[in-house]
Amino acid sequence: MTRDDALQLDAQDPLAPLHELFQLPEGKIYLDGNSLGALPKATAERVRRAIEQEWGSDLIESWNKAGWIDAPRRLGDKLAPLVGARTGEVLVADSTSINLYKVLHAALSLQQGQRKKVVSERSNFPTDLYIADSVVRAHGGELVLVDTPDEIPAHLDERCAVLMLTHVHYRTGRMHDMALLTRWAQQAGALTIWDLAHSAGAVPVDLLGSAADFAVGCGYKYLNGGPGAPAFVWVHPRHHGLSYQPLSGWLGHAQPFAFSPFYQPAAGIQQYQCGTPAVLAMTALESGLEVFEQAQKLGGMAALRSKSLALTQLFMDEVEARVPQARIVTPKESAQRGSQVSLALNGDLSGAAYAVMQALIARGVVGDFRAGDPRRLEAEPHLLRFGFTPLYTRFADAFDAVTQLADILATEAWRAPEFQKQNKVT
Amino acid sequence: MTRDDALQLDAQDPLAPLHELFQLPEGKIYLDGNSLGALPKATAERVRRAIEQEWGSDLIESWNKAGWIDAPRRLGDKLAPLVGARTGEVLVADSTSINLYKVLHAALSLQQGQRKKVVSERSNFPTDLYIADSVVRAHGGELVLVDTPDEIPAHLDERCAVLMLTHVHYRTGRMHDMALLTRWAQQAGALTIWDLAHSAGAVPVDLLGSAADFAVGCGYKYLNGGPGAPAFVWVHPRHHGLSYQPLSGWLGHAQPFAFSPFYQPAAGIQQYQCGTPAVLAMTALESGLEVFEQAQKLGGMAALRSKSLALTQLFMDEVEARVPQARIVTPKESAQRGSQVSLALNGDLSGAAYAVMQALIARGVVGDFRAGDPRRLEAEPHLLRFGFTPLYTRFADAFDAVTQLADILATEAWRAPEFQKQNKVT
Repeated sequence: MTRDDALQLDAQDPLAPLHELFQLPEGKIYLDGNSLGALPKATAERVRRAIEQEWGSDLIESWNKAGWIDAPRRLGDKLAPLVGARTGEVLVADSTSINLYKVLHAALSLQQGQRKKVVSERSNFPTDLYIADSVVRAHGGELVLVDTPDEIPAHLDERCAVLMLTHVHYRTGRMHDMALLTRWAQQAGALTIWDLAHSAGAVPVDLLGSAADFAVGCGYKYLNGGPGAPAFVWVHPRHHGLSYQPLSGWLGHAQPFAFSPFYQPAAGIQQYQCGTPAVLAMTALESGLEVFEQAQKLGGMAALRSKSLALTQLFMDEVEARVPQARIVTPKESAQRGSQVSLALNGDLSGAAYAVMQALIARGVVGDFRAGDPRRLEAEPHLLRFGFTPLYTRFADAFDAVTQLADILATEAWRAPEFQKQNKVT
Repeated sequence: MTRDDALQLDAQDPLAPLHELFQLPEGKIYLDGNSLGALPKATAERVRRAIEQEWGSDLIESWNKAGWIDAPRRLGDKLAPLVGARTGEVLVADSTSINLYKVLHAALSLQQGQRKKVVSERSNFPTDLYIADSVVRAHGGELVLVDTPDEIPAHLDERCAVLMLTHVHYRTGRMHDMALLTRWAQQAGALTIWDLAHSAGAVPVDLLGSAADFAVGCGYKYLNGGPGAPAFVWVHPRHHGLSYQPLSGWLGHAQPFAFSPFYQPAAGIQQYQCGTPAVLAMTALESGLEVFEQAQKLGGMAALRSKSLALTQLFMDEVEARVPQARIVTPKESAQRGSQVSLALNGDLSGAAYAVMQALIARGVVGDFRAGDPRRLEAEPHLLRFGFTPLYTRFADAFDAVTQLADILATEAWRAPEFQKQNKVT
């Protein structure tokens, strides 16, 4: 593979026009859309209109006229096809952590105290574990954490209430088989909760086809909704009206504008709304979701998945060919990986990952660093993470990133003092 | 009082320059800042910069460089002087409902199961009651609702865990004596939670001086943070590190970027953060809070309170003089009212309030309607609400609003069919 070959792939890429829908900074190769998605070109103007016209001029009238009040459902409907859900099943609201809190309580309420064990992975994104710990305590249950996915089936027993997994792992990019694990869990009488933070917009997800029970996900990664964008929540229709979630705010009420002192949950997914929607943040996310309506015309999630796999494959092939100091932590089998590639550095270099990433960023290649588990760096090493957003990442970007990485390691450029300085947010 | 007198008051108003900091629609008299505050002129450009520069160009770097990660505390520090709190005590995050959920759990956890009764008002804003109902259930307690404030003392007994009140009532604009009720509650061994949704930025609040225990409030009313702006939460420092709130997301962790699988709450108010901050929404709210930095130079909350009382007094005087069909529901004693005036219509007109408000809005006088309790319309009638935001409301606005109201009632203009149509959001 030469750089010309990569440029040739870009020239032939049927999704290439989507790159033009994003405002990407000159001279940067942005491979961190798994942390914060890039800015769609339409967003600034869209938000400006929401601020100046809808808020500034029309003021409260916009709750009706501009459809502010319907935004959580309207955005949910735009998001639904990306995760294999139907119209009316997805709600956009609050943060991923808060939505996870809602569905964990809902799932445990469905188990009616008969089962109280929640099973997850020790290396799951920490907020998922912290929230699960809190909910499990409230129900007098227990949180069981496995070290590897292989251990999951042994814990799907008659005490298991919920199997809670992040579909694509935030560190390794490893993707679970949602349908298979859901089937195993349900055969054991457990319910499943899927965190789609690193899946929605990056890989095809089929919630209904997998017969999953609950899902949550993030609006600011592959959905390009902006920093801290609202998150989403999905509940299988078979649980609507039966499950209970405790964040019983007024906009989850059956008749919020009747101002009754007594809570009566709305039907369906609306029950999962709590407070007033964050309209400006929703506006930015809606613009991000509308990019996928353009992508739909070019083949949608299937085409995006093909390109994502080709991008990550190219990156891995080039790393294997040109970066002997690194090893690939992400599964090489395409069915088992999401849309990112994580690398660890070998031997004595293993502790240099942070500085290497800083050196990459200084050269305009933006990925990120995730610290390993200090007690078991063999199993969970320090990582260089590279996210590939098929909407805007080009094959030449993947190729060039490897070129810079190889050079930084070959020249030991990462040893410069400025690359050792720790930032507050890594 | 003539219109010229009102214009004269505006001409002499030392706070008049603050009006120029807002982008108010031509030809409208906006008296609904208690529902959605108006747009500060600086906000659109501020958000544009956050979108195009911080997000679009700098991307994840902005978590450090633009201080995104510190926004919940930075905004909290800007808000603190408005509510009588100190630097480091207020956190801006999530919605009012969700923050109330956090502090209710925290307060009940402090009572260690010894007391489980939460006392509030039946006519409190519904979301407060719905959330309290949920939290009380989780703790096996009870929610006791009083019909009038006079009944509160009788319920401050040895079973009372929490007195939860909205400082300024959303329907009537009646303001509680925070210091007195807090003292009574605490003398009985209870903790207090104050919802400042209709207070923060509208009336002086002294949380520390009142020795209150917990407070929450809203960013999109008198703080002018934009539709669905993030809310805030305050916890008295004596409870820091002792109280437990169950929305234990990663950004409430002592070391979020250590990515530990075990939750360890941060010290102080930081524990009350849950997920990733909604940066774009925070940016708009920060612009709203900075208006108060300008107001500080002109006398701050004391000056704003003087103007607010003068505005509401003028409005009430004019209604009494010129609108015989209406009665004033808001307390006339200035110590007992916030920054709004609510009217009910007399006799046969009582059911016409919705149509009258629609007719007012059609003439550019924007207040809002709040339905009464259908089972006891005498005690809780349908209301016309008028909010007076001293930052931007002028005396002539108050005068002209009464002129239109008087005319609409005298001519029965409200009977037109277009004013009977019910909107989804009232």
